[in-house]
Amino acid sequence: MVQYVSPRFDASFAALSDVTRRGVLEQLARGDASITELADKFHMTLTGMKKHVGVLEDAGLVITKKVGRVRTCRLGLRQLKEEAAWIERIRQLWAARFEELDKVVEELKRKEKLDGRKKRK
Amino acid sequence: MVQYVSPRFDASFAALSDVTRRGVLEQLARGDASITELADKFHMTLTGMKKHVGVLEDAGLVITKKVGRVRTCRLGLRQLKEEAAWIERIRQLWAARFEELDKVVEELKRKEKLDGRKKRK
Repeated sequence: MVQYVSPRFDASFAALSDVTRRGVLEQLARGDASITELADKFHMTLTGMKKHVGVLEDAGLVITKKVGRVRTCRLGLRQLKEEAAWIERIRQLWAARFEELDKVVEELKRKEKLDGRKKRK
Repeated sequence: MVQYVSPRFDASFAALSDVTRRGVLEQLARGDASITELADKFHMTLTGMKKHVGVLEDAGLVITKKVGRVRTCRLGLRQLKEEAAWIERIRQLWAARFEELDKVVEELKRKEKLDGRKKRK
């Protein structure tokens, strides 16, 4: 299964690669907020915050809705489920690989010990 | 706890935002490989693959070692543990938020039903 090819992941991981955008997600996970509120919270200009929210929106992580002059942001529906699953899968492979290496090292140590005994005899 | 500020995360999520680099991690999770082997596998030039491996190395996700003319790549020790924990935390907040909204919708539906009954009386 080649899940990693999902082009969605390019956008979502790129969206997560910025400290402000991660902060915005944490903030929105606690409650909806307007662009103005987010800009204030993160000490940013409106233009700067709009750009960050745009990146999160393009990645499907945030939904925005304009009512009158206020644009409200809320979390999207995807919830990073597939990204979490991919990371989990790679971590399992990774852990298995380290276990394998551990076994090789143990085996080498065991052999060394045996060789040492034989030499002493 | 403001885990999201970790500057490490900028580098690791940026490293994950490319399909080839995710593929390289999957590949290395199955076994060590030289830059040449990886370049062949992903139909890339050596220079292109070196760049990708460099990004993974800077993010601490991959370790490389040069023996003679061959540079071998293996997975780093970090195993994306903190990144997985951050995503999990945000997903829990996110899920809690959706549950909260579900409750509000249920409550509104219940009230509507009651109002409807009252009007029919």
